[in-house]
Amino acid sequence: MITTTDPRTGRQSDTDLAPTSADAVADLARAAEAAASVLASRPRQWRADMLERIAAALEDARAELVATADAETGLGEARLGGELTRSVVQFRMFADAVREGSYLEAIIDHAATTDLGPAPDVRRMLVPLGPVAVFGSSNFPFAFSVAGGDTASALAAGCPVILKAHSAHPLTSARSFDAIAAATAAAGAPDGTVGIVYGQQAGSALVADPRITAVGFTGSLSGGMALQRIIDERAQPIPLYGELSSLNPLFITPGAAIARADTIAADLFTSVTGSAGQLCTKPGVAFVPVGDAGDALVDALADRVDEAGAQVLLNRRIHDSFREIRDRVLAAPGAVERARGVEDAAEGFAVAPTLVETTASSLGADLVEEAFGPLVVVVRYEGAGDLRRAASVVPKSLTATLHHEADEIDLARRLTDDLAPWAGRLVYNGYPTGVRVAWAQQHGGPWPATNSQHTSVGMTAIRRFLRPLAWQNAAQELLPEELRDGPVPIPRRVDGVLQLAAVESTP
Amino acid sequence: MITTTDPRTGRQSDTDLAPTSADAVADLARAAEAAASVLASRPRQWRADMLERIAAALEDARAELVATADAETGLGEARLGGELTRSVVQFRMFADAVREGSYLEAIIDHAATTDLGPAPDVRRMLVPLGPVAVFGSSNFPFAFSVAGGDTASALAAGCPVILKAHSAHPLTSARSFDAIAAATAAAGAPDGTVGIVYGQQAGSALVADPRITAVGFTGSLSGGMALQRIIDERAQPIPLYGELSSLNPLFITPGAAIARADTIAADLFTSVTGSAGQLCTKPGVAFVPVGDAGDALVDALADRVDEAGAQVLLNRRIHDSFREIRDRVLAAPGAVERARGVEDAAEGFAVAPTLVETTASSLGADLVEEAFGPLVVVVRYEGAGDLRRAASVVPKSLTATLHHEADEIDLARRLTDDLAPWAGRLVYNGYPTGVRVAWAQQHGGPWPATNSQHTSVGMTAIRRFLRPLAWQNAAQELLPEELRDGPVPIPRRVDGVLQLAAVESTP
Repeated sequence: MITTTDPRTGRQSDTDLAPTSADAVADLARAAEAAASVLASRPRQWRADMLERIAAALEDARAELVATADAETGLGEARLGGELTRSVVQFRMFADAVREGSYLEAIIDHAATTDLGPAPDVRRMLVPLGPVAVFGSSNFPFAFSVAGGDTASALAAGCPVILKAHSAHPLTSARSFDAIAAATAAAGAPDGTVGIVYGQQAGSALVADPRITAVGFTGSLSGGMALQRIIDERAQPIPLYGELSSLNPLFITPGAAIARADTIAADLFTSVTGSAGQLCTKPGVAFVPVGDAGDALVDALADRVDEAGAQVLLNRRIHDSFREIRDRVLAAPGAVERARGVEDAAEGFAVAPTLVETTASSLGADLVEEAFGPLVVVVRYEGAGDLRRAASVVPKSLTATLHHEADEIDLARRLTDDLAPWAGRLVYNGYPTGVRVAWAQQHGGPWPATNSQHTSVGMTAIRRFLRPLAWQNAAQELLPEELRDGPVPIPRRVDGVLQLAAVESTP
Repeated sequence: MITTTDPRTGRQSDTDLAPTSADAVADLARAAEAAASVLASRPRQWRADMLERIAAALEDARAELVATADAETGLGEARLGGELTRSVVQFRMFADAVREGSYLEAIIDHAATTDLGPAPDVRRMLVPLGPVAVFGSSNFPFAFSVAGGDTASALAAGCPVILKAHSAHPLTSARSFDAIAAATAAAGAPDGTVGIVYGQQAGSALVADPRITAVGFTGSLSGGMALQRIIDERAQPIPLYGELSSLNPLFITPGAAIARADTIAADLFTSVTGSAGQLCTKPGVAFVPVGDAGDALVDALADRVDEAGAQVLLNRRIHDSFREIRDRVLAAPGAVERARGVEDAAEGFAVAPTLVETTASSLGADLVEEAFGPLVVVVRYEGAGDLRRAASVVPKSLTATLHHEADEIDLARRLTDDLAPWAGRLVYNGYPTGVRVAWAQQHGGPWPATNSQHTSVGMTAIRRFLRPLAWQNAAQELLPEELRDGPVPIPRRVDGVLQLAAVESTP
């Protein structure tokens, strides 16, 4: 029996869901494999329409989905409503990307006499990889879960998806899946286009199944490494796209501290405590200069933290882990508790926002552990060299943020050069939380942030679930439409030259 | 002491090269790390010029390089001259690709009000990954070794490269490296831009070094898996781009057998025995219909094999392995030796080209082992169903080839659908050997052919050594040139719309 828990009270209740058996997992994988070739043969326009239908189905189920997710996560209806909109928008944006077609990376090199002699006609584009397993996150029950970006990008690529429901929100997972499955069926998608499994053993069996060709995972470093160990034992290795761990350092220059101490304190507080600090892009460590301006900034931040109410975390594991890590950080040499909000409520998974202060010279590995929840470590630094040394102690992250003033551009440039190898996204005079869904987004960074040279947010996330295939000297009838001669309404590179989509002529 | 061996005689001689010590490997990695940030900061035009200088330096050293490689590989001066030209052309083509700039995947999304609310300016492009280790192959002393495509694509990406010289051609490796190192120095590249190590232990130390960010490898499946085990023990995982194993099945339809039995026999013989069968794209298994036309084709092929001279293999390991695998294949149930050329010469690493025949119903795993050398297994089939079942026994490969006639397009389409999941390149009415260097090339296939969704030949190979980086709300001065406002001479996607390179205006 699968249970669900109200994080506001800690009370657990039964659901009508059961752990998926190993046989059922294998059946789902077989169905997905059969669906894969059917999906790959359908035109892009059909697949884009299917994605639009999924978006509409999620929109139609909005009231039930948000209420269910709120009961299971305690994240609040405002945040959850916004997150569901994000899911809907992601499916629509991938539908547009599928129609536009540049993601196929279509290339034609006609037969030619080259510097290396006569060369055959070669044409290449990206094709779907095959059935994909998607493990949803605890902290985004919609946008990084069953109805999330991994699902949207894998379906957009033309891959069947088997979801592993997160144990922290099984009912939200089930309701999201129902909406998606109904939409794919209504679109005429083959059985096996989407599937879902419940329970940790089923998740492990899924990753081990030889029919699965890739895994998307958003969760903890330890969880990701456990999946990698399962993959390492497969006869056939497959990619794991893991979004794993991120401390998201934030740097405040002397000029920014002088010019904007109060504003930065207010906005940093919001960024650290939004969604109770349970965002993979939460700034976990902030570098603030020593001196009066820095003092004022830290004082203002401390005031806000002291006044903050308790915040409900998603589940018991995260709650217990947050308190353990906070204790470890506070026990580190040179760490001082500067502020703590209302202490944990009597019941449920609430904790107090906490501000820890230390100095750049004290900064060691024990102070830079990611605490999933409303904790921030403020590091006081003296000069740029100090900053640079301290920055190298911080693990590589999804993001790095720099607050600077316009007249500090040389310093900002040096810090940019220092930080670029440490992150996948550099944020200036803003906050890393709030990840824009756009073509240019990069949500992925050097290990241990993620383990791939790809993003899990934004349109280029589709590349994870595609592989290149080339056709040499193929008859026109054997080529996919997108690689045939004549004007085609997608961008292509032809004989080395990039060409925009041909506008379809009206007869 | 590093030794070199003449494969025509088997005689071993000393070189002036020594195995690289662990300390020296670490020094090279440190130098590469220091070079990485300098290289990343140089303009693309400078890097393209450096690649052109390397091409010119290889051309200048042609006579010595080809003679040295011939003495170490026995591949012959004609083949080696062509291969060196290929190396030269690859550096030049990557120089062009670097100048053209589309490989950066530059994307700009301006700040906007979106369906998800106000969104910040986000800009993204691909940046160099960092120091890359490249393990050259035995069978391509130029084009897949020190002066090969992995080196060219990694340097094009802006990554320093440390090469592992192949034990079968250490002097060719050293001379190639000298030419490349002189060219990079003349271009003003920082120390550490290229390095080379000798000896298996040094290779292992290189892959284990924490400063290495990716590994390119062309070699055996067992060799690639050994490198993967070293990577699995690193604190920080890195991608291994392995080109490992490929059987390259070739299918001949009944129509093609009737229409072109003699031509196919002649060309298939050339493809199987070219470079003594030591090509990763050598067709190792050919499906030929039963009946008169198929008989004629196999008879013609057998005649050529019977008349063939002994062929010199690259080294003792390959020679011994070829004979062992040939024995195993011949011992498989249902296998018949149809033809064998001149038997192995008295000295050196020569073997006889060999043709094995079997039936589709006999085809099992023991008949589809890759034999690196001039061996082909002909499988006689009765119908399309027979063909389909037999095809599924063949391991996934770099390529799959289909010979069909124009009036068999429906059969060809069904076979294309069957074969597409089995290969990275589909070849029609041709042969998989001879891999065109072009934008559209895909030299990579499903496991165990390779272990990534990338190619190691052609311009898109550069993607392996790049990672995306995003800048959010950055001042113009902090952005790379390619992401600044205003017309820029590279293709970019701006606010969702792909744009071609702006032509630079003449004042």
